[in-house]
Amino acid sequence: MIYDISMTVHPDMAVYKNKPEKKPVFTVVRTFAKEGGYETDVSMNLHTGTHVDYPLHVLEDGDNSDTENLETLIGEAMVLDLSHVKTAITADDLKSYAVKPDSFVLLKTVNSETDAFDFDFVYLAEDAARHLAACKVRGVGIDALGIERNQAGQPTHKALLKQGIVILEGLRLATVREGYYTMICLPLKIQGVEASPARVILTE
Amino acid sequence: MIYDISMTVHPDMAVYKNKPEKKPVFTVVRTFAKEGGYETDVSMNLHTGTHVDYPLHVLEDGDNSDTENLETLIGEAMVLDLSHVKTAITADDLKSYAVKPDSFVLLKTVNSETDAFDFDFVYLAEDAARHLAACKVRGVGIDALGIERNQAGQPTHKALLKQGIVILEGLRLATVREGYYTMICLPLKIQGVEASPARVILTE
Repeated sequence: MIYDISMTVHPDMAVYKNKPEKKPVFTVVRTFAKEGGYETDVSMNLHTGTHVDYPLHVLEDGDNSDTENLETLIGEAMVLDLSHVKTAITADDLKSYAVKPDSFVLLKTVNSETDAFDFDFVYLAEDAARHLAACKVRGVGIDALGIERNQAGQPTHKALLKQGIVILEGLRLATVREGYYTMICLPLKIQGVEASPARVILTE
Repeated sequence: MIYDISMTVHPDMAVYKNKPEKKPVFTVVRTFAKEGGYETDVSMNLHTGTHVDYPLHVLEDGDNSDTENLETLIGEAMVLDLSHVKTAITADDLKSYAVKPDSFVLLKTVNSETDAFDFDFVYLAEDAARHLAACKVRGVGIDALGIERNQAGQPTHKALLKQGIVILEGLRLATVREGYYTMICLPLKIQGVEASPARVILTE
């Protein structure tokens, strides 16, 4: 059984704060009538849909995609069902879980219940990010287009990225239950960038 | 051991026939100086670098990405070392291999020895595609940006895609030896398109 936990990329998909300039644009550049084949260009933000944030996204001297380590993106992941959380996931919400070093934690929230962008999406509070960093996780994923909102200076991103912890945003976890899975997260291999769109699957 | 057999996407990468309009273009849309963060847009052809061709690319009524089956893209793959072939891989070149139904065949050629676009790249001849289709393979990958060239009407593409056989182009196989691997090919999940850029890895 393969769970595809990636967002579908299309022109009308949810994008951060519904900003029109963040919607991907597709342009057909070859047609059967004219060139005897069909080809499309896409113009999109690298943070479109399911994607990995590299440290350069929020840290001026941060690493970019060139230091990505596939070993981090493939392996066991634990899905935590936090669907009862209303606003922000706090350290208290996480303390009942045995989060071990090297875990990859995927946060399932009410965000997975809609495909629309919710301005009040559930996010990971700074103290929860510090807790996960102290647990020495290898990565954190969330079913929102941002791992935080309305926190000046983006402390959640920084608490994780400064420790080399991967951030995975834009997951779709509605069909996945709490528990352990094997995750395969493969971002596009793009040189020297601060984020990369990815396809992510879980298997049991 | 993970073999990353994907091309690196960057502004000066090899693109089909070196056409300038096929080079991906990156635009920085947020900077630390102005917005306190870093964000990039990309504009690219869906056939950039390593990618999957869906039937719609060459068949007017062909299926698009919406019918993609991840089970086909994940599983055993056999790498055939055809580095001795000079121009086109023919059915004769393949007949010494025991290609079983449901195999995913990856064709390693001299194309993997350079990152530049070679106008005379080694391709899969029509008769070889028909042979592989008769073997009922589930997919064929090649280390060129096209699986064929200079064949009017794209008969290699059609021989495969009409049978629902996946075509995977733009692989990099220099570091991989002939033999059996587990392949994981994850294209971006894009709705209704004729091709999708992918990250592809092999494990032993």
